[in-house]
Amino acid sequence: MLLNAGCEISFTTTIATPVILMLRPRSGSGQWIIREEYLINPRLSVSEYTDNYGNLCQRLSVPPGDLTIKTTLDVDTADQIDVQPGAPLVTVEKLPENVLKYLLPSRYCQSDLLGKLSLEIIGDNTPGYDQVEAIRHWINSNIEYAYGTSDASTSAVDTARERIGVCRDFAHLGIALCRSIDIPARMVVGYLYGLEPMDLHAWFEAYVGDRWYTFDATQTRPLGNRITIAYGHDATHVALATQFGPLQITGMKVWVDKSTVV
Amino acid sequence: MLLNAGCEISFTTTIATPVILMLRPRSGSGQWIIREEYLINPRLSVSEYTDNYGNLCQRLSVPPGDLTIKTTLDVDTADQIDVQPGAPLVTVEKLPENVLKYLLPSRYCQSDLLGKLSLEIIGDNTPGYDQVEAIRHWINSNIEYAYGTSDASTSAVDTARERIGVCRDFAHLGIALCRSIDIPARMVVGYLYGLEPMDLHAWFEAYVGDRWYTFDATQTRPLGNRITIAYGHDATHVALATQFGPLQITGMKVWVDKSTVV
Amino acid sequence: MLLNAGCEISFTTTIATPVILMLRPRSGSGQWIIREEYLINPRLSVSEYTDNYGNLCQRLSVPPGDLTIKTTLDVDTADQIDVQPGAPLVTVEKLPENVLKYLLPSRYCQSDLLGKLSLEIIGDNTPGYDQVEAIRHWINSNIEYAYGTSDASTSAVDTARERIGVCRDFAHLGIALCRSIDIPARMVVGYLYGLEPMDLHAWFEAYVGDRWYTFDATQTRPLGNRITIAYGHDATHVALATQFGPLQITGMKVWVDKSTVV
Amino acid sequence: MLLNAGCEISFTTTIATPVILMLRPRSGSGQWIIREEYLINPRLSVSEYTDNYGNLCQRLSVPPGDLTIKTTLDVDTADQIDVQPGAPLVTVEKLPENVLKYLLPSRYCQSDLLGKLSLEIIGDNTPGYDQVEAIRHWINSNIEYAYGTSDASTSAVDTARERIGVCRDFAHLGIALCRSIDIPARMVVGYLYGLEPMDLHAWFEAYVGDRWYTFDATQTRPLGNRITIAYGHDATHVALATQFGPLQITGMKVWVDKSTVV
Repeated sequence: MLLNAGCEISFTTTIATPVILMLRPRSGSGQWIIREEYLINPRLSVSEYTDNYGNLCQRLSVPPGDLTIKTTLDVDTADQIDVQPGAPLVTVEKLPENVLKYLLPSRYCQSDLLGKLSLEIIGDNTPGYDQVEAIRHWINSNIEYAYGTSDASTSAVDTARERIGVCRDFAHLGIALCRSIDIPARMVVGYLYGLEPMDLHAWFEAYVGDRWYTFDATQTRPLGNRITIAYGHDATHVALATQFGPLQITGMKVWVDKSTVV
Repeated sequence: MLLNAGCEISFTTTIATPVILMLRPRSGSGQWIIREEYLINPRLSVSEYTDNYGNLCQRLSVPPGDLTIKTTLDVDTADQIDVQPGAPLVTVEKLPENVLKYLLPSRYCQSDLLGKLSLEIIGDNTPGYDQVEAIRHWINSNIEYAYGTSDASTSAVDTARERIGVCRDFAHLGIALCRSIDIPARMVVGYLYGLEPMDLHAWFEAYVGDRWYTFDATQTRPLGNRITIAYGHDATHVALATQFGPLQITGMKVWVDKSTVV
Repeated sequence: MLLNAGCEISFTTTIATPVILMLRPRSGSGQWIIREEYLINPRLSVSEYTDNYGNLCQRLSVPPGDLTIKTTLDVDTADQIDVQPGAPLVTVEKLPENVLKYLLPSRYCQSDLLGKLSLEIIGDNTPGYDQVEAIRHWINSNIEYAYGTSDASTSAVDTARERIGVCRDFAHLGIALCRSIDIPARMVVGYLYGLEPMDLHAWFEAYVGDRWYTFDATQTRPLGNRITIAYGHDATHVALATQFGPLQITGMKVWVDKSTVV
Repeated sequence: MLLNAGCEISFTTTIATPVILMLRPRSGSGQWIIREEYLINPRLSVSEYTDNYGNLCQRLSVPPGDLTIKTTLDVDTADQIDVQPGAPLVTVEKLPENVLKYLLPSRYCQSDLLGKLSLEIIGDNTPGYDQVEAIRHWINSNIEYAYGTSDASTSAVDTARERIGVCRDFAHLGIALCRSIDIPARMVVGYLYGLEPMDLHAWFEAYVGDRWYTFDATQTRPLGNRITIAYGHDATHVALATQFGPLQITGMKVWVDKSTVV
């Protein structure tokens, strides 16, 4: 489906604050960026670089005062995400080199501490896709979705204990459980058509059957029409705005609609 | 200046032909992509990757028949290019690691064969920027600009001998002469506001005074309002379309105007 | 000083276990590998790749039974580490792109949780080197060095609370405190001449004054004659052996001596 | 076979000369470096970095006077190179991203100029391995091996015309012919056990059947027991010493023997 998506974020700061934005999705992996608009008001000097995950990062220093950033996209997305029950585990010795790093624990996904829980969850499922799906389903069934119950410091271990959180926490737990059974997993942030209430979203991908598959523990069934904005080990690497000072978000709008243009 | 630039290219082929396009400029280095539209008609599956030079490359297989590609950009560009007479040579032992490769000869820039000519040209100029400017000026004064006198196989050695060519040949010669005196140099393709006749353009950059500077041997004075599409060692790496089969270009339009939107 | 250093590690496993070793130090950054021997007994098929930190990683599958790995090095090392009181903070907007990632929290260095402590420690010190040295000195004075009090899951937050640990914990805490005040910091594992008792060692580096400086919170004064084996965000990325199965270490010897050969 | 190989090179210069050495082979791809010694006399400050091809490069400034470099290796090598008649062509749309660049022409391998010759040579061979083998065999049969007939500026086009050259020229021609039929090919320099007369050697690899295969047009049959020192597009990128000034080689010894140590 052709989607029109975007977000508008307002910031304010009293002192000049460096910030790194990640708001320019890349084409590839099932999405094609047909149109993109990236407005920064007031106009500032911005440089852009590619991080270790392939994300395009915009770097700027926000002067004292107000700042508004608005990005608008028309994107050709896949209506379905690929679902492949039975796709086999790729054993560690056969993983591609650039996938190996996704086996390691990270700030919010302490996979080294969650091995017991994942063994309970996966039970007798066939190693690979079915184990990841068991993890995804367990999270969807056992973790309560509720706003305001977690914060920027909440990790997968916290969520496993509290059993409550938001999309970011669901993704962190899914990632940590996968890694604890030696399945590479990574964080994705982006847009999801039809999400209610509309907001930026987070989910995860797991590497089984020789490729990355999409999993979303917040949903009861596989939903397509997603736009990936950024990949990373966990929320650390996919923040839409990483700030180094007292930058305040004063407003935010997000939309994902069918595109009316061709 | 805010520029609206773009190109529309029509292709035809009788058999399916893989092609790699380089038509998505990146923000950074003095340009900010405000709006971008990238249309492929008919719609095809495309993947995108980043090459060794940081260029975004679009990879697709063109089926038999006609194909039209149209990209449109609104870009915030610098009105002036930086000019820095006296900027010193960076000696090889102090060059950044990722710049070293631009000292080496390449397909169209056989710097190993042009040392004698460059020594004649640079004369007593101060090592660094002034040498590059002497090279640029020499090319502008001694090479005749004429269409149809060179082709896809013409190299810097050919141009040094024939003393005639187009922007691509001017850039190749400038690059080869710089490298022959151990100054890193690279090829740039992009848009230049006010170019006559309007077309895609090529120029070069040289690394002196601890950064890259822009040089354009086709012009008599330094002109800003450029949009960089791609960087490379030479034309080999910055072709807007690298095809692997009998793909024919049947039409091409290029435009660079002041942008009317804000 | 010319050092002869090495380690011999014995493993045993009952089932085939993939493992990634990081036991081949690289020349550069003040060390030159004159001689190196890397023995794996029994001889196995090994592949080697470079990770995101530039470390050389050896990948193999250990068959059931015993395995011994022995590496021996003759290395030309610096007798002193550079010490630069007053070296200024590099503000975030001026950090090199490839250093930015070292500002982010990681598995064992939750810098997002330690801002209050670091502000207490740095007091009125000049931003930059002096703040890092204040952190290093505070850890050396306030954290007790004791074996067996921490384990593979111990993080900087744990160490800040328990105030006890080993070199790895000292390094994690130093790194986390630096990052919490926007100073890039990274983990180093390697050899240190004169360490008592002799073992593999860990310390950290902080990026101030436009380069990386070495800090070791386990020592009372700056000591040179170090051999870096690997760099990373934290212990996650610099494990000498990352195993994916029940591989047991059954013996380990480490030595660092003056080299007798020239 | 376990090989003991190495080289000793003597240089002299009247003025300080920056040089980049490529004399530290990497483990992987069928070779395991068991022992390595890298001596520079007099001892100088050297830094090391990894280039775009994964080669370890040593960078130093040679002061006026004499310099001797000696590297000695014990390497576990494969007795046979893999030979796979019938291995299919990988069409361009299916090539891995990091292999695509090896389709492009380079300084010494002007594949864009040699399409006619390669079509004559490959005849009716099955696309893929058999075409490369036809090219290799044609070069072995049609190009005369003779010292002193080519120099540092000799390219594949020159060799195709002159029909005479050394190992470097044979490799360049093989690479250029492969690329001209859209088969990725790259240059290799290294050691070959049993080479007569003993010297450093050059050959090439082609990507068919989803991996790189070794081809050596200087030999009448496939020979194993090779040690790869460096990879590149052509000789530009694999020079054992790239110098930027009047550095003279005053002596050179190369040896490749069965290793007597275990």
